[in-house]
Amino acid sequence: MESQIFTYGQLNEFTIKMFRAIGCSDEDAALAADVLLSADLRGVDSHGIARLSGYVRLWEAGRVNADPEISIVHETPSTAVVDGDSGLGLVVAPNAMKIAIEKARQVGTGWVSVQNSNHYGIAARHAMMALEHDMIGISMTNASALVAPTFSVERLLGTNPICVAIPAGEEPAFVADMATTTAANGKLEILQRKKEAAPEGWIQDASGTGTTDAHALKNGGALLPLGGDREHGSHKGYALGAIVDIFSAVLSGANYGPWVPPFPAYVPMPTGMPGKGIGHFFGAMRIDAFRPASDFKHHMDNWIRRFRSAKSIKEDVPVIIPGDPERFLEKERAENGIPLLPAVVEDLQSIAKRFSIPF
Amino acid sequence: MESQIFTYGQLNEFTIKMFRAIGCSDEDAALAADVLLSADLRGVDSHGIARLSGYVRLWEAGRVNADPEISIVHETPSTAVVDGDSGLGLVVAPNAMKIAIEKARQVGTGWVSVQNSNHYGIAARHAMMALEHDMIGISMTNASALVAPTFSVERLLGTNPICVAIPAGEEPAFVADMATTTAANGKLEILQRKKEAAPEGWIQDASGTGTTDAHALKNGGALLPLGGDREHGSHKGYALGAIVDIFSAVLSGANYGPWVPPFPAYVPMPTGMPGKGIGHFFGAMRIDAFRPASDFKHHMDNWIRRFRSAKSIKEDVPVIIPGDPERFLEKERAENGIPLLPAVVEDLQSIAKRFSIPF
Repeated sequence: MESQIFTYGQLNEFTIKMFRAIGCSDEDAALAADVLLSADLRGVDSHGIARLSGYVRLWEAGRVNADPEISIVHETPSTAVVDGDSGLGLVVAPNAMKIAIEKARQVGTGWVSVQNSNHYGIAARHAMMALEHDMIGISMTNASALVAPTFSVERLLGTNPICVAIPAGEEPAFVADMATTTAANGKLEILQRKKEAAPEGWIQDASGTGTTDAHALKNGGALLPLGGDREHGSHKGYALGAIVDIFSAVLSGANYGPWVPPFPAYVPMPTGMPGKGIGHFFGAMRIDAFRPASDFKHHMDNWIRRFRSAKSIKEDVPVIIPGDPERFLEKERAENGIPLLPAVVEDLQSIAKRFSIPF
Repeated sequence: MESQIFTYGQLNEFTIKMFRAIGCSDEDAALAADVLLSADLRGVDSHGIARLSGYVRLWEAGRVNADPEISIVHETPSTAVVDGDSGLGLVVAPNAMKIAIEKARQVGTGWVSVQNSNHYGIAARHAMMALEHDMIGISMTNASALVAPTFSVERLLGTNPICVAIPAGEEPAFVADMATTTAANGKLEILQRKKEAAPEGWIQDASGTGTTDAHALKNGGALLPLGGDREHGSHKGYALGAIVDIFSAVLSGANYGPWVPPFPAYVPMPTGMPGKGIGHFFGAMRIDAFRPASDFKHHMDNWIRRFRSAKSIKEDVPVIIPGDPERFLEKERAENGIPLLPAVVEDLQSIAKRFSIPF
């Protein structure tokens, strides 16, 4: 079936109305829609409007507070722990990142660990908030356990993404946004829909053996950490996912490891949860806390140009800079619209009807 | 040929004398020896005393200043840029990390980017300085280009390691120390000595094609970023190596990308170098800048125990915590001595003779 194309404006209007309908303030609804749809614009379709009904169901299950009081639990000049009051991560995260940026303005850098939040969309949206302030932005979050550490049969980590956004001068910013797994879950879903096999090193089955069955995850298997297996460095992907988990949750007082609340509202909550909600971690570093921003940008441009002009293995496959593909898609989709799969359109029509919102 | 066993004390005494012989102060010689030999203790043999003659040759070539004036070029309450004055990285790095720790004491976190340094030994040694202060320690460095970014034939990045050291309570600390490549160069050297093939995903040949020839690196090939190829996430390893390069060098004013000075003194310096020496980046985050240290440690212990007790794929291959293997080796080697390969012993005998130091 063909995808259907929507303008950004259409999806934005609908998403804002939907978030208002569950009780978000006008301001929070607009912010949440902006954050959610940044994923669709940048081509991370798995984290965008396709998840809107999932957020609504979390609210219906009483797991999301649509009108949270986001507060600072503890702070120092360069740090804070923020309590998201069970709010939408789409709202909690940009507010926490704002605090990191304000602290960086004051003392050079700002670092904020967040407890009691929910899924926050794409990591890049929050890290990139730093760019217009001539700061480096860092964003990470834990997520419910789908990933098996090296040698583990059990799933103990989420796909735990890291984003680092670095400003440049004349060149576009460097924006690396990556799950700490070999492949993100969204890519696996694409293979499932196409009924194709997964490459080796992406997943293991319920016994902990590597498999190419794209459906293994649903049958008790697990995603693999970046590297795939020990010989190919999976202990490094495991360590990266663990660092994200600890910075986001052990530092803030959120849930970690196998206790992170699941996104689907029908999945029961883990038992014996040691913290509150999901955790995030944000950082902002003022460039001129290190060297004049103009010097830095000049050298970032030089860095980017040198890497972009590297001799490539094939003429039609150039060496690219992290963030290039998402930026190209963002421009293209802002101009030509956002394609949604039929299943996503149906899902949106269903919540539209339920909440009497035109779609 | 059999390895020869030396006590830590023997190697320490010799290394201190050697560093004194090239003009280091007593204090710097002791510090440099301690840092260098921490690699041998922790089993990272490629970065320990096996490199001592390499450091000496860098000094002979005028590329290392044995008596540097390490200074702060610019600072804010939470940041600093440090100029290593071409000193041994083994001395510059712990001094820069000390500044990060002092800033964390004052304002919660400290972040130091370093220019004009040289190779700094293992990343873990510096990050772990934070542990006794109940702080999280972060350490990274760039290095001369041996790694090809995804789709690149050219080598543009070093193996650019990242270490994150996180204190726990009753459990030993979490210490993840990793090159941002699939495999570190040291592992390749072991295969070369054994005349064995390398696993797929470790290296590419001079045309940019993946190869299992462990000697490909010497023949114009390159190490591959963590992930190996695009399908297995090498663009993530490339991004991680790039972030290390930018934090260490573009932020500090050191050389980056293909312009990082090589370790072997006989390799000519790159032309058109945009900065000074090699770059490092250090961070320290006070735990109680986020939450009480005792709470954090309690939850870190819980995190570690849950992961360590995970059901593993084979009974004799348990799930481990980053830092476990190095800690076991450190204990074992402190007790039973450090094995050195015959080639390393000969090399040390040769510099011992040249500088009239008993070995």
